Amino acid sequence: MLDMRYCELSKDGFGCCMTVKETLFSAQSEFQKVDIFDTESMGRVLTLDGLMMTTERDEFYYHEMISHIPMCAHKNPKTVLVIGGGDGGTIREVLKHDTVEKVVLCEIDGMVVDACKKYLPAIGCELENPRAEIRIEDAIEFIKDKKKQYDVILIDSTDPMGPGEGLFTEEFYTNVKEALKEGGIMAAQSESPFINQKEMKMMYPLLRKVFPIVDCFTGPIPSYPGGYWSWAFCSESVKPLDYIDEQRAEKVSKLCKIYNKEYHKARFALPNFVKELIK
Amino acid sequence: MLDMRYCELSKDGFGCCMTVKETLFSAQSEFQKVDIFDTESMGRVLTLDGLMMTTERDEFYYHEMISHIPMCAHKNPKTVLVIGGGDGGTIREVLKHDTVEKVVLCEIDGMVVDACKKYLPAIGCELENPRAEIRIEDAIEFIKDKKKQYDVILIDSTDPMGPGEGLFTEEFYTNVKEALKEGGIMAAQSESPFINQKEMKMMYPLLRKVFPIVDCFTGPIPSYPGGYWSWAFCSESVKPLDYIDEQRAEKVSKLCKIYNKEYHKARFALPNFVKELIK
Repeated sequence: MLDMRYCELSKDGFGCCMTVKETLFSAQSEFQKVDIFDTESMGRVLTLDGLMMTTERDEFYYHEMISHIPMCAHKNPKTVLVIGGGDGGTIREVLKHDTVEKVVLCEIDGMVVDACKKYLPAIGCELENPRAEIRIEDAIEFIKDKKKQYDVILIDSTDPMGPGEGLFTEEFYTNVKEALKEGGIMAAQSESPFINQKEMKMMYPLLRKVFPIVDCFTGPIPSYPGGYWSWAFCSESVKPLDYIDEQRAEKVSKLCKIYNKEYHKARFALPNFVKELIK
Repeated sequence: MLDMRYCELSKDGFGCCMTVKETLFSAQSEFQKVDIFDTESMGRVLTLDGLMMTTERDEFYYHEMISHIPMCAHKNPKTVLVIGGGDGGTIREVLKHDTVEKVVLCEIDGMVVDACKKYLPAIGCELENPRAEIRIEDAIEFIKDKKKQYDVILIDSTDPMGPGEGLFTEEFYTNVKEALKEGGIMAAQSESPFINQKEMKMMYPLLRKVFPIVDCFTGPIPSYPGGYWSWAFCSESVKPLDYIDEQRAEKVSKLCKIYNKEYHKARFALPNFVKELIK
């Protein structure tokens, strides 16, 4: 039998492995290598340029965090923009909020969306929801002329290299801020506090140049190297724990494997070394 | 060059890997296989029967949690018993509390203690502290005649198989409860909510048969499979968030990479699926 194993290892040789049963999709898009394979341990898995994006078994650890924390911290999120997130997991979570009239997904790579619709239906199940608008566009261009249009913007990007690189710049963050309505909130994946300390030390000071309120929340993600992840919470006027929509949080929690109001609040209590990283 | 890699994979092929530079110690004790090796990514690493116990780079994620949460929840912990924990990391943390007059380490395997003193000095540095008493004994026997002797008991065991198996029984937990003084607290590592759901579902109902108060706290540990770990908090009279010794927590936090009072409180906010696991 062929013993095929996917491993995502850091330069110094630490990381996460899983045995591969079968490759379902593998192609080079205009932007990156897109692979979907099946594993016994983690179900179906999406990688981009060989880096772990999501697995069927643990995708909710990531998607519930990036979505429900900013969404429940907003009083009435009607229009939401998701940047990246072509697998559809983030918009699936956003659409659990009945305040949402429209969620726009701006993903640069149409191949990711098409492949996930076909091979990761449990994650991509809301990509054809009538409240979702899928734009296959470069978010860096897309955002430029959007002024005061969104209540919540979620940056569900790859790492700050390759196609995702331009999503980690002061110019881009400034445009995101201007695309937010008054009282708007931006959340962005901000890498691993264990593996990507350099990237976090680069990202948070940039965010602080743009947003008066910048905070960080963290949580476990088994399939990511180091198993521990962070997200930035940014706004012009909303502090992370100023407000939680109790009723909506309660309703959404019933549809979630992780998210609940107490867990939401607890995410902002950071380890000493993470406080240092985001200074 | 020899490309040697340590991988701890679950039966279905998911887990954590690291490249090995050099083996420093490898021997079969009376109880288990003891290995210490050096890695570029994680520093020196201890495994028992091939399972990851601790690494120099991320050991504090585990040791700070199992120690400071029960210790700061106790009003005046003078006598502490650590069961297992032969690497010395847990007693190192316990000894950061100046209330402690004596910490007894009861480890079944003298080879672990000796090897860690020699090869993992950053972790085993307090094994010769005059406030520490090292007993190379089977905790199952040791605990039997200890009645109302300890303020805090920490079960820093291996998994519920091999030498650690007898540390996950109703009889053992009953003896631990009886070894606690009034107002005493027991904390025990309780496996991974991601990988060891079966073990958690077995352990918590057993604990509830013995202790009127049983709760769970969780946190990340990069080098453990799944990167996410849990500990049980048990007591006859103390609820986990009834009390935190603010002054001691503040003092200890200054000596820690992770622990602080807010993080302590936040550990007890559990994901929905973990609440189900420990019901």
